[in-house]
Amino acid sequence: MCELLGMSANVPTDIVFSFTGLMRRGGETGPHRDGWGIGFYEGRGLRLFQDPQASADSEVARLVQRYPVKSTAVIGHIRQANVGAVNLANTHPFVRELWGRYWCFAHNGQLAHFEPAAGLYQPVGDTDSEAAFCDLLNRLRAAFTTMPDVAALLPLLVAACDEYRSKGVFNCLLSNGDWLFSYCSTKLACITRRAPFGPATLKDADLTVNFQAETSADDVVSIIATEPLTDNENWQLYQPGQWVLWRQGDVLAQG
Amino acid sequence: MCELLGMSANVPTDIVFSFTGLMRRGGETGPHRDGWGIGFYEGRGLRLFQDPQASADSEVARLVQRYPVKSTAVIGHIRQANVGAVNLANTHPFVRELWGRYWCFAHNGQLAHFEPAAGLYQPVGDTDSEAAFCDLLNRLRAAFTTMPDVAALLPLLVAACDEYRSKGVFNCLLSNGDWLFSYCSTKLACITRRAPFGPATLKDADLTVNFQAETSADDVVSIIATEPLTDNENWQLYQPGQWVLWRQGDVLAQG
Repeated sequence: MCELLGMSANVPTDIVFSFTGLMRRGGETGPHRDGWGIGFYEGRGLRLFQDPQASADSEVARLVQRYPVKSTAVIGHIRQANVGAVNLANTHPFVRELWGRYWCFAHNGQLAHFEPAAGLYQPVGDTDSEAAFCDLLNRLRAAFTTMPDVAALLPLLVAACDEYRSKGVFNCLLSNGDWLFSYCSTKLACITRRAPFGPATLKDADLTVNFQAETSADDVVSIIATEPLTDNENWQLYQPGQWVLWRQGDVLAQG
Repeated sequence: MCELLGMSANVPTDIVFSFTGLMRRGGETGPHRDGWGIGFYEGRGLRLFQDPQASADSEVARLVQRYPVKSTAVIGHIRQANVGAVNLANTHPFVRELWGRYWCFAHNGQLAHFEPAAGLYQPVGDTDSEAAFCDLLNRLRAAFTTMPDVAALLPLLVAACDEYRSKGVFNCLLSNGDWLFSYCSTKLACITRRAPFGPATLKDADLTVNFQAETSADDVVSIIATEPLTDNENWQLYQPGQWVLWRQGDVLAQG
């Protein structure tokens, strides 16, 4: 199993605090030694850092912790390989361009006997996760020639995820930079931080942040993770089959 | 104008020495203050580092210098913007997946009145460079449904580059991880290093490397750059309209 980390915010926000907790689980407080990756949207651009080695030992991960990238949409992942060799091509998140936007995807779980129809988007590596991402984009492209409103996309996204979930375990995060879609098959949690902000203490590292000192009164920042990252806040747990569409830190739709 | 940097090698090789010279031109010894990027193939994976700020000031560039990524195919670029705002989405190199491989592209020059037909691949940013890259991939995909031998691709690549060159200045580097295609419109230089290796001295930084101490007798490493990066080696200058297809450090084809 792997762990997911997502962020949706209404102002560019750094994710150093949550990332620090997640990275410790990559080979130190957790067993996810088979790589990690994180994608930050900056405008329409996407900044992607990845390493096929354990995040707790990664020089690139230390850079990301030292060098706060500010973003309104982030997708991160640490990997414990079950399908596909440990190498860069199999490291999440995966990225493709569709309709002139970069789409970023990470998956936690595994799919049995998953052999989607070939399409324009093809996996580069050999994980079931990347195959599902390509299949999802192939479905979207087959249904629309230009980017529709997200309300029109949602039924397709949910139907595809329901189908993948029927083949195994499929928790995922997907973003096009504008919104962040999260789908829970077995395990996903979230928290929305807004004024009045308080202190938060990481479960996986000896670190407390007082968000009040770091934020302004209008900031809304939501974090989505496989398991709660802090132990003094009230995380909401997704139910199996539940999905939430986030935008600028708030829930845009859910079901 | 921008500067290009490419590497093709028969064993995974780090490009720290050449990268150090190029980065100095990004705002220190040269005027290319508008971002930089470098893509390293690792197997079928591609590791991309980019920054829309000057490379000489970039924390990410310092990481790349400290942390030698070894690769057999590398494409780097430093930017002096003439078309498109300075932001991450407009920062080279650009990447797309085609036929289950990541394709990486960087361009030096500018194109006038360049309005290619819309296709499956669409630019995310607003540079002529990314528009040309998308147009090139659209042509390849229209001509072949699966990856052909590079010999079958070459006539299309050269014809497209000749056409782009007729609209302005079009020096470029393109790779699918297996080979590296280089096309000269106005300015490009290359050098192939093989045994017996000697010392090389950077023009842009006070740095000499003795490649003999760093390599084995069978290593073949070619560097392609807008201008020679060292001042004590015999760089070959491309002629306008000349192209070279590199593979594992050697010339596979040229014209």
